Amino acid sequence: MKAGEMLYEGKAKQLFLTEDPNVVRVKYKDSATAFNGEKRATLEGKGELNNRISTIFFQYLKDNGIRNHFIEPISPLEQLVRKVEIISLEVVVRNIVAGTLCKRIGLSEGTALPRPVVEFYYKDDALGDPLVNRDHISALNLATPDQVAQMREIALKVNELLKKLLAELQIILVDFKLEFGLDGEGKLLLADEISPDTCRFWDAGTGEKLDKDRFRRDLGQVVEAYQDILNRLGGKKHV
Amino acid sequence: MKAGEMLYEGKAKQLFLTEDPNVVRVKYKDSATAFNGEKRATLEGKGELNNRISTIFFQYLKDNGIRNHFIEPISPLEQLVRKVEIISLEVVVRNIVAGTLCKRIGLSEGTALPRPVVEFYYKDDALGDPLVNRDHISALNLATPDQVAQMREIALKVNELLKKLLAELQIILVDFKLEFGLDGEGKLLLADEISPDTCRFWDAGTGEKLDKDRFRRDLGQVVEAYQDILNRLGGKKHV
Ligand SMILES: Nc1ncnc2c1ncn2[C@@H]1O[C@H](COP(=O)(O)OP(=O)(O)OP(=O)(O)O)[C@@H](O)[C@H]1O
Ligand SMILES: Nc1ncnc2c1ncn2[C@@H]1O[C@H](COP(=O)(O)OP(=O)(O)OP(=O)(O)O)[C@@H](O)[C@H]1O
Ligand SMILES: [Mg+2]
Ligand SMILES: [Mg+2]
Repeated sequence: MKAGEMLYEGKAKQLFLTEDPNVVRVKYKDSATAFNGEKRATLEGKGELNNRISTIFFQYLKDNGIRNHFIEPISPLEQLVRKVEIISLEVVVRNIVAGTLCKRIGLSEGTALPRPVVEFYYKDDALGDPLVNRDHISALNLATPDQVAQMREIALKVNELLKKLLAELQIILVDFKLEFGLDGEGKLLLADEISPDTCRFWDAGTGEKLDKDRFRRDLGQVVEAYQDILNRLGGKKHV
Repeated sequence: MKAGEMLYEGKAKQLFLTEDPNVVRVKYKDSATAFNGEKRATLEGKGELNNRISTIFFQYLKDNGIRNHFIEPISPLEQLVRKVEIISLEVVVRNIVAGTLCKRIGLSEGTALPRPVVEFYYKDDALGDPLVNRDHISALNLATPDQVAQMREIALKVNELLKKLLAELQIILVDFKLEFGLDGEGKLLLADEISPDTCRFWDAGTGEKLDKDRFRRDLGQVVEAYQDILNRLGGKKHV
């Protein structure tokens, strides 16, 4: 494969090779999917909003000592990132009960958790991204115990940093999903995206949902909510 | 409540108070249930077999330093045990992939695990006994982190002891479920039962299932398989 060729097409992004084997170009798409791909739609403008929002979060995290894949945005829909080998785990951090956690532990949506809850899900569409524990991760050779401990620690730090940033903007960080990968030297890097597609954001005043739950639950005004998040983050066109 | 009164009736056992507030009488029933109570039957003789098998396992574990609730059998269907406050967790140890683990991690039944896998399930019928991790356990206040670590350690020791005992009898210990409780002084005790209802046993020669999967999967000869386990354990009438 050579520069410019598409390396991977996912539900929300495309990855392209660049001249530098350690760098890939990510292009955000306007497509929205939920429930393991069962529900689909095109949401015009979402790609650009997520590219810009993710850029702001990753730059902020980098400025605060969280090593990550982000390099720079290069167009409204695109950014350059370090190429990593993605670890097949979704690392979820929760501050408030919502979504599937309600069914798992029987607490109702909106219940504040006494401490953040960190969960690891096995990234496997055919299995429906099941919850796994450290022994499953080890049995499947998905990550070493040390990597699991590091991902947990970084995820909790990211939580503190994002909560702080968002609180100033009157946004409650309910929960979010991270992905990690290993770079060419085997170093663990925070990767993928951080956007309203991968977080739950509630307006601190009204409780209004400002994230992908508007799409999942047919609440309407999806792109408007994403735009609201970008506006509060002070987002400007980057190119 | 006074001595003789029934404290609790479960799907497989009844618990009665005794003169001693620290001791309960457990009576094993002939009823079999599976799939969270959806499938039911009466299996004549199962109660006595499980009472006798569980007696042998708990005595063996006690002899090998595993603190547990078992005191003594007092009739073919009954045993005395220390009364504990049960921790609402099922602690599962797996040596070989079977049952729900196949669906969770996508490995087929019979796959040997490189290391034992320990899982915690939240004992909650309405929620379907979901898998939980240490953060869920902590959020629900089900057990302290120290108790979780202790349960894991004890469960792994029980696994080594049972594997060793069973290997000599040409039985493969595929997986099993433990329950723990806190006694009057707050000490952690292994409790409940260890029987073909709560373990997966495969004949080492033929691979034949000698446990409750015979009932779950309509393989027939359920009580005969339990009897075979008791015979190999050298079980005799205890009263
Ligand atoms: N820095 C990176 N290097 C390589 N791959 C990356 C990097 N960051 C993210 N990825 C991967 O690129 C893909 C992004 O595409 P997208 O988010 O559309 O995937 P998806 O539809 O969510 O599916 P899945 O994550 O299950 O592959 C994901 O597989 C993600 O793990
Ligand atoms: N030493 C003990 N002291 C008090 N309770 C115990 C002790 N050992 C076991 N138990 C509890 O007694 C009950 C045994 O009944 P049984 O196995 O029939 O219950 P079950 O139908 O499996 O339901 P569940 O375990 O969900 O209550 C269980 O609730 C078990 O946790
Ligand atoms: Mg994705
Ligand atoms: Mg039981």
